[in-house]
Amino acid sequence: MDKETLMLTVAVLGGTGKEGKGLAYRWAKAGYKILIGSRTPEKAVSTAAEIIEMMDGSGSVVGMSNPEAAEQADIVVLTVPYSAHRDTLEAIKDVMKGKLFVDVTVPLVPPKVSKVQMPPAGSAAQEAKELLGEGVEIVASFQNVSHEHLLGEASVDCDVLVTGTSKNARHEVLKLVEAAGLIGWDAGPIENSVVVEGLTSVLIYINKQYGSTHSGIRITGADNK
Amino acid sequence: MDKETLMLTVAVLGGTGKEGKGLAYRWAKAGYKILIGSRTPEKAVSTAAEIIEMMDGSGSVVGMSNPEAAEQADIVVLTVPYSAHRDTLEAIKDVMKGKLFVDVTVPLVPPKVSKVQMPPAGSAAQEAKELLGEGVEIVASFQNVSHEHLLGEASVDCDVLVTGTSKNARHEVLKLVEAAGLIGWDAGPIENSVVVEGLTSVLIYINKQYGSTHSGIRITGADNK
Repeated sequence: MDKETLMLTVAVLGGTGKEGKGLAYRWAKAGYKILIGSRTPEKAVSTAAEIIEMMDGSGSVVGMSNPEAAEQADIVVLTVPYSAHRDTLEAIKDVMKGKLFVDVTVPLVPPKVSKVQMPPAGSAAQEAKELLGEGVEIVASFQNVSHEHLLGEASVDCDVLVTGTSKNARHEVLKLVEAAGLIGWDAGPIENSVVVEGLTSVLIYINKQYGSTHSGIRITGADNK
Repeated sequence: MDKETLMLTVAVLGGTGKEGKGLAYRWAKAGYKILIGSRTPEKAVSTAAEIIEMMDGSGSVVGMSNPEAAEQADIVVLTVPYSAHRDTLEAIKDVMKGKLFVDVTVPLVPPKVSKVQMPPAGSAAQEAKELLGEGVEIVASFQNVSHEHLLGEASVDCDVLVTGTSKNARHEVLKLVEAAGLIGWDAGPIENSVVVEGLTSVLIYINKQYGSTHSGIRITGADNK
């Protein structure tokens, strides 16, 4: 763990949900300072306490409101359901300038969650880019990883594709992927986020069709080292 | 090989290209009757002769124009570059009623082929659906498989995702996937084709970024048997 990583603060908005909590737990274990954000700050405080308990009392994990967490963080990770995507972005956009925003949102449209249905912007991440405006780097990632895997210690049988507005931003998030014990790939510009977000619907379809619970993907024929 | 499969005729339009030739070769070996289609029928005839030579003189492979091949086939597979997609569809649409159409086209927009850039219809396959109209089943598949692999005998380290307008149509194409010696997955409705087509740009990006030549994907955590 280098000093730079130890000093970075990561806000996980919607961090009381299963996916957010799993990511927060893995990053806290890796030494990042974690701020759990929620629309209900008391819930964020109690999730932070649960994560610290899972780590036997160690780690830096604090709960607060979404805008407070975003304001104090270097990297802001959004893990809310798509129905809360726009409202959460509106609530934090004034404090986002100069920060790195990581969108984990999948634009699922119930009840047909196994059918790809992207918003007019092209993807949730591109919608975030429109809403947050200039001066914020946007990365889309972690959409395909099953939350059941993240809260355990086992290795996760799913690679993580990282798309985003700049190579520097993607590389910063690839460090988060590695810190979470996952295998990551720079998957190109933010326009490619439609593939990664949409892949979640494909995997949900495969789960239903083949009776699995957490299908994933691996990249073959390349070496990410 | 059951009798039904032996009786099916598959047209491979653009079958003189590397991808089409590779698929035609694998299906001919599996016992399908193959019609190679091309805008230049002489080229189709010579490609058909090459494939028969690769099979030591066995197999049923005949070359002709694209519309002739489409008319005589049960299943019509399109493997042309995206720049020829619309014109080829216009040339065959009058003979397509009641047939199964398999779109292998990836809507790459040079020079930025590693960036996903879908047409207004949502994907090349959805564009084909609009152009071919009612009464034609549309399936999108085989976009991610490197042609170098298909002309060899080795196993291919890339799974094939099959999306399409009906489960029956997808299952018919899953038989073609298996006949080509590949592992296939029913990946859901035609709207999901954006993921599979777009994944080609992601894999091209990964190839450039990590110095590989034919990256692919595997589905994990599920069993397709």
